[in-house]
Amino acid sequence: MASTTKTHFKNCLTSSALRSYLAEFISTFFYVFSAVGSIISSRKLTPYAESDPTTLVATAAAQAFAYSVSVYMAAEASGGHVNPAVTFGLAVGGHVSIPTAIFYWAVQLVSATLACLLLHVSTAGQAIPTTVIAPEMTGFGGAVLEGVVTFVLVYAVYAAGDASKGPQSPTAAGRVAAAAGLVVGANVLALGAFTGGSMNPARSFGPAMISGDFKNHGVYWAGPLIGAGAAALVYQNVFFPSRSDEESMHGVVEAVVVV
Amino acid sequence: MASTTKTHFKNCLTSSALRSYLAEFISTFFYVFSAVGSIISSRKLTPYAESDPTTLVATAAAQAFAYSVSVYMAAEASGGHVNPAVTFGLAVGGHVSIPTAIFYWAVQLVSATLACLLLHVSTAGQAIPTTVIAPEMTGFGGAVLEGVVTFVLVYAVYAAGDASKGPQSPTAAGRVAAAAGLVVGANVLALGAFTGGSMNPARSFGPAMISGDFKNHGVYWAGPLIGAGAAALVYQNVFFPSRSDEESMHGVVEAVVVV
Amino acid sequence: MASTTKTHFKNCLTSSALRSYLAEFISTFFYVFSAVGSIISSRKLTPYAESDPTTLVATAAAQAFAYSVSVYMAAEASGGHVNPAVTFGLAVGGHVSIPTAIFYWAVQLVSATLACLLLHVSTAGQAIPTTVIAPEMTGFGGAVLEGVVTFVLVYAVYAAGDASKGPQSPTAAGRVAAAAGLVVGANVLALGAFTGGSMNPARSFGPAMISGDFKNHGVYWAGPLIGAGAAALVYQNVFFPSRSDEESMHGVVEAVVVV
Amino acid sequence: MASTTKTHFKNCLTSSALRSYLAEFISTFFYVFSAVGSIISSRKLTPYAESDPTTLVATAAAQAFAYSVSVYMAAEASGGHVNPAVTFGLAVGGHVSIPTAIFYWAVQLVSATLACLLLHVSTAGQAIPTTVIAPEMTGFGGAVLEGVVTFVLVYAVYAAGDASKGPQSPTAAGRVAAAAGLVVGANVLALGAFTGGSMNPARSFGPAMISGDFKNHGVYWAGPLIGAGAAALVYQNVFFPSRSDEESMHGVVEAVVVV
Repeated sequence: MASTTKTHFKNCLTSSALRSYLAEFISTFFYVFSAVGSIISSRKLTPYAESDPTTLVATAAAQAFAYSVSVYMAAEASGGHVNPAVTFGLAVGGHVSIPTAIFYWAVQLVSATLACLLLHVSTAGQAIPTTVIAPEMTGFGGAVLEGVVTFVLVYAVYAAGDASKGPQSPTAAGRVAAAAGLVVGANVLALGAFTGGSMNPARSFGPAMISGDFKNHGVYWAGPLIGAGAAALVYQNVFFPSRSDEESMHGVVEAVVVV
Repeated sequence: MASTTKTHFKNCLTSSALRSYLAEFISTFFYVFSAVGSIISSRKLTPYAESDPTTLVATAAAQAFAYSVSVYMAAEASGGHVNPAVTFGLAVGGHVSIPTAIFYWAVQLVSATLACLLLHVSTAGQAIPTTVIAPEMTGFGGAVLEGVVTFVLVYAVYAAGDASKGPQSPTAAGRVAAAAGLVVGANVLALGAFTGGSMNPARSFGPAMISGDFKNHGVYWAGPLIGAGAAALVYQNVFFPSRSDEESMHGVVEAVVVV
Repeated sequence: MASTTKTHFKNCLTSSALRSYLAEFISTFFYVFSAVGSIISSRKLTPYAESDPTTLVATAAAQAFAYSVSVYMAAEASGGHVNPAVTFGLAVGGHVSIPTAIFYWAVQLVSATLACLLLHVSTAGQAIPTTVIAPEMTGFGGAVLEGVVTFVLVYAVYAAGDASKGPQSPTAAGRVAAAAGLVVGANVLALGAFTGGSMNPARSFGPAMISGDFKNHGVYWAGPLIGAGAAALVYQNVFFPSRSDEESMHGVVEAVVVV
Repeated sequence: MASTTKTHFKNCLTSSALRSYLAEFISTFFYVFSAVGSIISSRKLTPYAESDPTTLVATAAAQAFAYSVSVYMAAEASGGHVNPAVTFGLAVGGHVSIPTAIFYWAVQLVSATLACLLLHVSTAGQAIPTTVIAPEMTGFGGAVLEGVVTFVLVYAVYAAGDASKGPQSPTAAGRVAAAAGLVVGANVLALGAFTGGSMNPARSFGPAMISGDFKNHGVYWAGPLIGAGAAALVYQNVFFPSRSDEESMHGVVEAVVVV
């Protein structure tokens, strides 16, 4: 793994690496655009403003659809993270080098911010809603919930992308994309009224930048990153060693992460 | 089949078995978290409290998405039951040993309870809704409806997981996961206003434990278990014998149940 | 094709044929149960009774999910018709014999009726809603709309089940199931307020029997059967001859129709 | 590429070409029928007329389902464009000849118009809603938003259809259909209240013809065509050259575009 890290460090500005950044940029842009756009589009149509459960269904569907496609579109070029927490979880598992992870984070955050900026400007100044925590809840409670659902997201990415399940990379990309999209949809529905169900620091960062409202923003970093790291450690240590060890330790997730 | 049962009995505490319990724990936790979370999240947003059909759509989508991923994530490690009734149905068919089934049940019930506890505590004390039977209905009517829909769920698991349909286990896992998620979604929509569309004793047990409300709880055990057992018997005796008999009797569902 | 018909005629009461009837029975039961159950479940929860678009979304999702699984579950045993119009369309194309089609129709109609009866009794007498035509429309207009959408359904079944696209029957079954479910969902959403989007005489017959309301019932036979027959003729004559003719004429849809 | 264009020019009236036009006709008809039908069906049921977010969810689901099936049904015969912008994007990439693109456009526009005409007549004169731009927005803002989402749609079609990912055309068709449907669903949800989320000049042209309302109609051509062209150029120049160049330049998207 150490040698892999070094190799990746040298390759952070090759044309292949630049392509991976562009793929992450396009996919993250699309995902955040859909997540935020679906909320403002739905709310604009409802007479009850912020208290309509249909908005929850609308944004959950939009995020499930968009995250699934985003992961799939970028799978071959960048591994299809589209989420700093997923990048972190794969880095913890040794499947992405630290320098690559840093570049990915930067691209994901810039892309999310630009998606929100475009929505704000093109819609003649609609307010961009941030992910917020229900008033009666503590930040700690919010971080716990975000951590738990991000654990599931990264665990699902590992389980679906497991190279030992099949050799064909487009099939593995499809599995990861389907699983990730479904997890995102279910979790937005489950936590919509409590934390917004972000699971994704970039998805929370973009709206915070454009709206200038960073209240409780740390929750959307602490929870997802800890959850993602925990999922990586649990999956790698508990589920991988049971099979043709060395081989699966190296080959794993490579079908997904082709950086 | 008898020798298989003995073999499983000895293996109930091996590291492979412990992994399967952990896989069932994580998947059941996620499923129940999504099922219950989507209801309280949606209701929190609506001005009509308990009488809004959007909540039905929201929780049906969440449960379809989450059950599908839960089954898929656990398929390789535990067979992906995520439901005591499915475990029972596969035990009736001889594909899971009795001791394994007992351990699975315990893990599923504890996991469901902890998922509800986490939701209750992290959301600053939101009430956890139990699955309830419409006031005008009898418990018997509720058990019949739950039994019928659980029959379909277990029948679909058998049909999609049939080993004779293809050799690759990840493909079989994907088929079972897709079919199971779709059945859960359709049935929650069909029975939401009558029994809640549980099909899953663990999904009903967790909220009952945390809320302390066990009214009609027996309905959510009697119906699903009888339905699951009936589906197993029908599928095994009617649909399996038609093909290369001995072989398919043994190989069947093994792609799914790899305990 | 003529010899195939004769062979099928003799086989209408073999154990394989009986299995296929049971598979059609279970699948049609599940589909009609979900279609009707989702409407009464959703309406029971809404304060606006018959005029809520959420009911449309709920039943469209339920029917898409349930039809997809129903087709898949029965694919191997019966070809997965779950719909007299699909059976008719495949008979027009020569892929199902007339005697088999008659038995299928009988099973589908009985199954749909029993599904509605169970819902009616178990829910303590909830009224079973029939598929109705909007008051301002003519029966002819309704039949045209039902015919057009059933054309699409049967055309999709032919396109997805085309044996020349791949040899593996479980894969073909999955393709047909996915396509059929999506068409049903889209058409229910498109026609919900005009004809109900039935596309399926059995789905309309069951509620009519239990409610005793056969108003405009002929629309749900004339439209779907004509649409299905037209789709079969168009697909067979326009799209099939272009490829390795004789072979694809015989092998076609056999992956789906294994009666 | 030039010789390919000449070959296609001669073949624009062969039986194979006529089949491809019929496939585009049926698929575009179904898609526009579902898109427009779901809006009028849902609005007919709601007491709030034009301001209900449930209509947004209903039409997004209908369009995602219908676009996915439409692409799939036509994939083998015509490449499954179902959208003048997708045809344009593939023409820019050199995968469709100019004469073929012109015929496709004509078929798509006529088909969309007839779908709206049928809906208008059969429903006893329901008004056919056009895609409109929110009053506070500029046409330029609308075109930018439509361009961005169409970029994603065409980029997804390229990414999913990439021939280098696998040899089997039905699998590639399934991937393109799934990705395209999900992108359409997410974008309708994101832009429903701002531009309608058309991404498709034919889907906007049909309702404009039948209603006679061409206000801002140019937005639904300028945005999607520019977005589609940009996606084709980005994908071809940035992502393709990285692999076994000449081969992938020629083989690409051929699995999808089999004109």
